[in-house]
Amino acid sequence: MPTYTAPVRDMQFLLHDMLQIEKYSNLPGFAEATEDVINAILEEGAKVAEEVLQPLNVVGDQEGCTLKDGEVTTPTGFKEAYKTFIEGGWSALSADPEYGGQGLPHVLNSGILEIMSSANMAFGMYPGLSHGAYSAIHAHGTEEQRRIYLPKLISGEWTGTMNLTEPHCGTDLGLMRTKAEPQADGSYKITGTKIFISAGEHDLTDNIIHLVLAKIPGGPEGIGGVSLFVVPKFLVNDDGSLGARNGVTCGSIEHKMGIHGNSTCVLNYEDATGWLIGDEHKGMRAMFTMMNEARLNVGLQGLSQSEVSYQNAVTYAKDRLQGRSISGAKEPDKPADPIIVHPDIRRMLMNQRAFNEGARALVFWTALKGDIAIKGEGEGEREAADDYMGLFTPVIKAYLTDLGFAHAVNAQQVYGGHGYISEWGMEQFVRDARIAMIYEGANGIQALDLVGRKLAQNGGRALFAFFKELDEYIAERENDAAVAIYIEGLKKAKADLADATDWLMKNGLANPDEAGAASTDYLHMFGLVTFAYMWALMAESAQTRLANGSAGDPFYESKLTTGRYFVERVLPDTSSLLARVKSGSESMMALSAEAF
Amino acid sequence: MPTYTAPVRDMQFLLHDMLQIEKYSNLPGFAEATEDVINAILEEGAKVAEEVLQPLNVVGDQEGCTLKDGEVTTPTGFKEAYKTFIEGGWSALSADPEYGGQGLPHVLNSGILEIMSSANMAFGMYPGLSHGAYSAIHAHGTEEQRRIYLPKLISGEWTGTMNLTEPHCGTDLGLMRTKAEPQADGSYKITGTKIFISAGEHDLTDNIIHLVLAKIPGGPEGIGGVSLFVVPKFLVNDDGSLGARNGVTCGSIEHKMGIHGNSTCVLNYEDATGWLIGDEHKGMRAMFTMMNEARLNVGLQGLSQSEVSYQNAVTYAKDRLQGRSISGAKEPDKPADPIIVHPDIRRMLMNQRAFNEGARALVFWTALKGDIAIKGEGEGEREAADDYMGLFTPVIKAYLTDLGFAHAVNAQQVYGGHGYISEWGMEQFVRDARIAMIYEGANGIQALDLVGRKLAQNGGRALFAFFKELDEYIAERENDAAVAIYIEGLKKAKADLADATDWLMKNGLANPDEAGAASTDYLHMFGLVTFAYMWALMAESAQTRLANGSAGDPFYESKLTTGRYFVERVLPDTSSLLARVKSGSESMMALSAEAF
Repeated sequence: MPTYTAPVRDMQFLLHDMLQIEKYSNLPGFAEATEDVINAILEEGAKVAEEVLQPLNVVGDQEGCTLKDGEVTTPTGFKEAYKTFIEGGWSALSADPEYGGQGLPHVLNSGILEIMSSANMAFGMYPGLSHGAYSAIHAHGTEEQRRIYLPKLISGEWTGTMNLTEPHCGTDLGLMRTKAEPQADGSYKITGTKIFISAGEHDLTDNIIHLVLAKIPGGPEGIGGVSLFVVPKFLVNDDGSLGARNGVTCGSIEHKMGIHGNSTCVLNYEDATGWLIGDEHKGMRAMFTMMNEARLNVGLQGLSQSEVSYQNAVTYAKDRLQGRSISGAKEPDKPADPIIVHPDIRRMLMNQRAFNEGARALVFWTALKGDIAIKGEGEGEREAADDYMGLFTPVIKAYLTDLGFAHAVNAQQVYGGHGYISEWGMEQFVRDARIAMIYEGANGIQALDLVGRKLAQNGGRALFAFFKELDEYIAERENDAAVAIYIEGLKKAKADLADATDWLMKNGLANPDEAGAASTDYLHMFGLVTFAYMWALMAESAQTRLANGSAGDPFYESKLTTGRYFVERVLPDTSSLLARVKSGSESMMALSAEAF
Repeated sequence: MPTYTAPVRDMQFLLHDMLQIEKYSNLPGFAEATEDVINAILEEGAKVAEEVLQPLNVVGDQEGCTLKDGEVTTPTGFKEAYKTFIEGGWSALSADPEYGGQGLPHVLNSGILEIMSSANMAFGMYPGLSHGAYSAIHAHGTEEQRRIYLPKLISGEWTGTMNLTEPHCGTDLGLMRTKAEPQADGSYKITGTKIFISAGEHDLTDNIIHLVLAKIPGGPEGIGGVSLFVVPKFLVNDDGSLGARNGVTCGSIEHKMGIHGNSTCVLNYEDATGWLIGDEHKGMRAMFTMMNEARLNVGLQGLSQSEVSYQNAVTYAKDRLQGRSISGAKEPDKPADPIIVHPDIRRMLMNQRAFNEGARALVFWTALKGDIAIKGEGEGEREAADDYMGLFTPVIKAYLTDLGFAHAVNAQQVYGGHGYISEWGMEQFVRDARIAMIYEGANGIQALDLVGRKLAQNGGRALFAFFKELDEYIAERENDAAVAIYIEGLKKAKADLADATDWLMKNGLANPDEAGAASTDYLHMFGLVTFAYMWALMAESAQTRLANGSAGDPFYESKLTTGRYFVERVLPDTSSLLARVKSGSESMMALSAEAF
């Protein structure tokens, strides 16, 4: 049976040393987040994850959700665990105090999200979607809608969902058929079928708030005619009590590769009563608030499965005695050495470790930008932070899930044959991690978003700001021998990325297929460069600690070594990715469809 | 529901054009393999695979095998399918005519193995293991043992198994505890527990021939004290009829990630009667005959799952209408373009295509060496072919399964959300393909076998012969504009591999950890170079055809384009792999086990 221990110390290191979150006490909610408060929250969250959620992860996988007479039953223990979760106030952590939230920094919440997702990814999706619904209503709903829905979504008494996909349209939502007929009282009657609705129906709460994309008849064709509606499972009376059942039912739940503990529903809407969120035909704008947040959280899921699978692979590699070290027996008194002595086992573990710590730094670093984008004092400060959020969202979603999956596969490999056997739990991490590359916009779509939209947005303002930040950072440290390895690695990788960017600008406009052909490789280069930056920042923080009273602390020593491993063993990929980008689209697009 | 069409034409191209198998009519069994015979066999094999085995692939996954009162029941239809399979003589194709085989070339059989495995990997394992048992007994058994077991293994009336792993030992078989007590009549009493025994118990045949590794008490410690025994499920009477049930029982079957249609058994041996195969304490030598064959077939499984998942991804990419081509609508009359117009979808499909065709060429090319190693006329010719077999076996096993799995994941990605839903069948290909990276020696062990044993064997004779072959091949064509792209790519990649090899020779002996740290990246470089060679050979054959009566044939045109894609988009990886190799083991091995 797999185990999990929340990486609390690493998170403390990132918040207090690398990001020095105390510096931001001018932002609302940050002053309350003292070092003691942050540490207490992380430790409490770790307890819930380790003691309540993690033991249910295998149960959720084996039992799955069941649909009977339109009602979905979640796996044994999920209901009680959810009660514990919301009673602990975990769904309210970074929500608006105006509606009952605790108003703490989002960067802190993202740490809690990773911990909960590592312990039980399928479970974490229920509150995760609620928070997305909260954000969309908070940003685009009327004050009345906020008063009706936000307090219950924040407290967790109700959960939320996102309804986009239909059988014939996923990425291309312009093809949407679900209709919303305006009613005299200002409401709408929603009719249509939505699929792949995570947490679409369940027994955890007595109401579910569906956010639904639909077309108002007579509106513009395509994506410009899509509006967003709030459709509660049970209508809400003026006094806040629950009224009649709304016209939305669960037609079936999907049998899928993983995340069995979360119900993936087909939802049938028949004259369901809904209310417009935001403006008519501007549904995508409102939904994007929810999707961007969801994309960052899906990136976190990639990290979360790599982290938990890594922890178990380490335990196995230390326990499993097999063979002798090729450089001479390490434990001659035992029948064999533990397999962690073998370089190829180390390779897999170090790859995971370098990824997990780099990814966590990137998520925290970006989440802090998210806080600044909303709470920052100056307009310019908020805009700059929001630019970064937009630029990094597709990178975090796609790079962290591509790699998170690959590393869950590595962790399974460390187990040898036992990794393939269900009872060891490693193959579940692989199956669960797999979905993160697909939902919330398949990773190819993220790459296109990065290359086709985010790079050029506002004349490339976000990208140039990031490059400028990197160039200045590198220039300031070029002669600092202590961080030479990390800075040289970053400099070389950034140069490759700049080279690829120039190539894209020259060729992508002339022939959009060139941009499309390069998109995924470019996104991976971008991911590597952001990781190189994070590793340089972490190395500096670790060295500061080592030089100031923590000399010899293995935590900081390991940081430096893991960062060096990243630079030496992972970062060189930028050169072959650059070669691919520059090879262009010709041989990729040459074959006719018939030739396949 | 997924479908499958055997790549018969590609196999014909490889056998007749690239390998020109007709040239080898001097080898026993090759003269019989005329173009007509080969084509008829491939087409017949395709029918069985497409019509009988493929429809059972999903059934096998969903039903799995069941154990009741020690008896294992295979999924619905497997028994009938197996009957059809052996009645068609498919298990006898390349077996020794002396014992009832058809004696046809192994290279032809490897094509049939790929086809059967693409259609139903779990099913293909039953006859696959029988063939391995056949080979071990054929090579190391006594004439009496051959007479007793080979005819029934060849006809398929009986199946075979390999028994190596025990709960506490997989890779490190020296730790083995299963005992074999010598008896007065020359037999042995085998007692112990073996795990992960594929096809260990089933209802397809009325006898199962277990090949079991065990230790004879008083023998040498460790791996040098391991002997190989044949242990039939039912003892065989002198007249060939079945006698008493032997002391081997199935204790349980594993619940695993995939290949549910194949029973993975825990086998308990209690005073089971067995007979020594080969010499006492020389069991590993005998077992390696079986393992090397099995490793090539596992490599084939990697290819087989990439091929079948690729075919389905292509179909989906042509049917699914979503979005518009970024270079302008391709099918304006439809609500959207088929997703095959999108470059990132092409990228995934072309990566798979370039891999599948390159892998198939490599398997055929190596299998022909296998025929020559056994049937070749001159001692030198046999030795050279056997050297190549030894050198390429770990590469084919590990590279084809690492990439085969990665490409099954790509094919699943093409389906978007539907790829995660079981009913579409794509996630099964991923789960099934995953085991191939693990069993028959985890891929890290293959890398160590390549770097630690095969490179240096006989003073590097095999490697230097291969490098010499490449250098001469390149030199002869350097000024041939028609194949310039392929030759330049091969030359650059081979130079990187030679560079890495020099680095290994300089550093690997001084510090074995350097060799271990480099092993997997080196193996992947080796795989890329062999693929580059295969693509150059295929491009030449395609050009010959195009210049001789097949001008404009899309099959040959596509070969050239796909080969170019491989050179431009896949082959550049050698540069970053080389950088990794040269970065050495220091940062990989620096952390103490406690620091993890």
